[in-house]
Amino acid sequence: MGNGALAELRTLLGNDSVLSADADTETYLIDQLRNYRGRALAVVLPRSTEQVVAIVGWCREHRVAIVPQGGNTGYCGGATPDESGRELVLALQRMNRVRAVSAADFSMTVEAGCVLARVQQAAAEAGRFFPLSLGSQGSCQIGGNLATNAGGVNVLRYGMTRDLVLGVEAVLPDGSIYNGLSALRKDNTGYNLGSLLIGSEGTLAVITAATLKLWPQMRSTATAFVAVTSAQAAIELLGMLRTQVGDRLNSFEYLPRSAVQLACEQFDSLQDPFESPYDSYLLIEISSAGLEDLDDLLQTALTSDSASELILDAVLATSERQRQAFWHLREKVPEAQRRAGGSLKYDVSVQVSQLPAFLAQVSEWVTANVPDGFLVCYGHAGDGNLHCNISQRPDAPLAGFLAREPAIKRRVHDMVKEFGGSISAEHGIGQQKVEELERYASPVKLELMRRLKHTIDPLGIMNPGKVLRS
Amino acid sequence: MGNGALAELRTLLGNDSVLSADADTETYLIDQLRNYRGRALAVVLPRSTEQVVAIVGWCREHRVAIVPQGGNTGYCGGATPDESGRELVLALQRMNRVRAVSAADFSMTVEAGCVLARVQQAAAEAGRFFPLSLGSQGSCQIGGNLATNAGGVNVLRYGMTRDLVLGVEAVLPDGSIYNGLSALRKDNTGYNLGSLLIGSEGTLAVITAATLKLWPQMRSTATAFVAVTSAQAAIELLGMLRTQVGDRLNSFEYLPRSAVQLACEQFDSLQDPFESPYDSYLLIEISSAGLEDLDDLLQTALTSDSASELILDAVLATSERQRQAFWHLREKVPEAQRRAGGSLKYDVSVQVSQLPAFLAQVSEWVTANVPDGFLVCYGHAGDGNLHCNISQRPDAPLAGFLAREPAIKRRVHDMVKEFGGSISAEHGIGQQKVEELERYASPVKLELMRRLKHTIDPLGIMNPGKVLRS
Repeated sequence: MGNGALAELRTLLGNDSVLSADADTETYLIDQLRNYRGRALAVVLPRSTEQVVAIVGWCREHRVAIVPQGGNTGYCGGATPDESGRELVLALQRMNRVRAVSAADFSMTVEAGCVLARVQQAAAEAGRFFPLSLGSQGSCQIGGNLATNAGGVNVLRYGMTRDLVLGVEAVLPDGSIYNGLSALRKDNTGYNLGSLLIGSEGTLAVITAATLKLWPQMRSTATAFVAVTSAQAAIELLGMLRTQVGDRLNSFEYLPRSAVQLACEQFDSLQDPFESPYDSYLLIEISSAGLEDLDDLLQTALTSDSASELILDAVLATSERQRQAFWHLREKVPEAQRRAGGSLKYDVSVQVSQLPAFLAQVSEWVTANVPDGFLVCYGHAGDGNLHCNISQRPDAPLAGFLAREPAIKRRVHDMVKEFGGSISAEHGIGQQKVEELERYASPVKLELMRRLKHTIDPLGIMNPGKVLRS
Repeated sequence: MGNGALAELRTLLGNDSVLSADADTETYLIDQLRNYRGRALAVVLPRSTEQVVAIVGWCREHRVAIVPQGGNTGYCGGATPDESGRELVLALQRMNRVRAVSAADFSMTVEAGCVLARVQQAAAEAGRFFPLSLGSQGSCQIGGNLATNAGGVNVLRYGMTRDLVLGVEAVLPDGSIYNGLSALRKDNTGYNLGSLLIGSEGTLAVITAATLKLWPQMRSTATAFVAVTSAQAAIELLGMLRTQVGDRLNSFEYLPRSAVQLACEQFDSLQDPFESPYDSYLLIEISSAGLEDLDDLLQTALTSDSASELILDAVLATSERQRQAFWHLREKVPEAQRRAGGSLKYDVSVQVSQLPAFLAQVSEWVTANVPDGFLVCYGHAGDGNLHCNISQRPDAPLAGFLAREPAIKRRVHDMVKEFGGSISAEHGIGQQKVEELERYASPVKLELMRRLKHTIDPLGIMNPGKVLRS
């Protein structure tokens, strides 16, 4: 790659849109968790879909691979270039317009670089609600959310990102624009290409914009922090609540004692909601667009005879501040783990009904086989999704703990497989789990994925080496 | 094709699973609306996924095309073979087992040949609810619902069929089984192949089973028949209701006077709910898994000051019998049209906010240009989906009316296009709309569809000529 080619790119996009000095590109070359570091020919910052087309054309001509990047908050290295220094990082941050919000259509069209919190806010300003919500919402971008089919804390009620999207605009590897933007609720005209691009982690196209579904703004909310007798009790309570409060149930998050204790130890601002410690906690939230007394509804549901047998203690948030405090306790767990030392992270899911048995088995195995670590397995229990993490014991040496990672991963993923679960519930494959996917996915699925990848991206310029081996 | 090859098929499947006598095959060769009639080498009735694999293998070897068929209730000829007599109809009706229902996981796994009403019933027996509901539910099969991404009367709240599916099992054109069956709520391990197969109308694979999402069983329902001042008023009322009753709103069906009058004229059992005629009616239904006074909620919403300005008359169903009567009035419209004479049917959608303007324009055009017909444009207004039908006037000759069809179709579809709408909201493309799709879809989308089709089905044996020209 000569300097002439890069100069051509500068001419196409303008000088300030092509970063190549080390000081300018550094933050794009390393992921937020600092697990992956790559090099790049340059970082380009297009301002429009047409500029993305120009970039893809240039990349085709010069056989340069593209690594699309949103807020760079992914956990699997999906947005980090390889170490060759020959890839181009295409960062969408300047394509951050809200193109349209239609309250009447309960929809909005946004560009890929819009930060998720800004999307939520624009919906709220129109009296509407966009339900995607996750810890990194202040910096992650909606394009990345689509590319990774992000999950978060409202999946139980609203589904994954894929379920929240009406249409997608993307630039294909041949440089053409696939314009699937549309606020239509029903459109059975041919194959559902948008759903294929969502969750393909930039390996099939660059998503440049999306039309999103909106809901009525929530006007009533009730939130409870609950201690239950066991994980099995948690799952029984989930079924009861879904039946009693219906579709109002947004979030049903599980925290073991280890998570609550770690978070409270690491952050002075956090407080255990109960005076005594318990083994298993739930953070439960219900909401409604109507004006309803949801505190009363939730309280009634939690104090029914059958619920009482499952519950050891419970506290309802009586103020927005208390509600936030409950959520901080939940959201700060990953950071608490980072502060406390080394941690091994597994983003897994099993069928909801299998969750207690899976938890018991993982817990038993960690206790018996990882003397220098302890299990911090928490997460979106309502969806069967657990962040099955293992933290280093404070007194154990880090190097020895980390050296066990391959063996621990193998056993955790094998257990997931034995339970018919998923080795990547919401974080995706990126570069981290390419080999794991090869190991656990069916050969039929892998072969079909490879054929689709080759058909759509025959030159292999779209995020090579992510999801599938290049 | 020699008799030897068919004999081979009989050996593979058993004699009673290969129908070739005219008397046995006739019902499979003509669609329910009697618009399409084909011929076939034979009709095969597999009992298992393995038998489907055997059939596909035989078809590959002998280069015989497969036409998958469910309940044969489609409107677009998607399940009818061509006239060559060289295609094989693969009817799924014997694969009709409910493989599993899990109340705890809010999911069930069913074979493709399960009749939709049976699926609903099996869910109900487990205290759960499967929301897909459409007029033909007593005979359509879930495999066909998936293949066509069926819509129906609950899309507003629950989405299309694609939104109701957790995983798909299908036999691919190379004879391999894609096993995507899974009750996992979150699984980001690679491309979303199931969503691609759903809605592909049998052109990419034969869907043999599916894992479906279930919801808590509804325990409260309220239903109202409402006369509104205009279509614009209907859309305003929709926004208000979504805000006030939240996610409890299931159905929001629009009926013009012409539809109500036609239905009441054709069926003695049907009755106009009001003494005076009105121009525009709505059938509104809300429901909840909880025990709630929804009649009170709906009444309050419909009698608010702002709603009152939009509503001319309204009646709440006070019994299940009255509720059924309202629904029969809605569901009998297509049959009433058939009884009354010729009718031209256009299954279109526009953005919800555009619906009043679209309706006005179509109405004006039909009045001015179709003297021997009248507009019966009704349907799922909550989703922007109208069955934009034109009925023959009783005194007009049928032949002349039908001869106008090409010109009428062109104008209706052009108007849909001008409004940014869809020429197939929920019925699909089948063989009926292949040319229309070529005319109105973007070249980029068509080219991508063709490439995917060729990659997955290089021999072109999966329902050729449907969706895409073969």
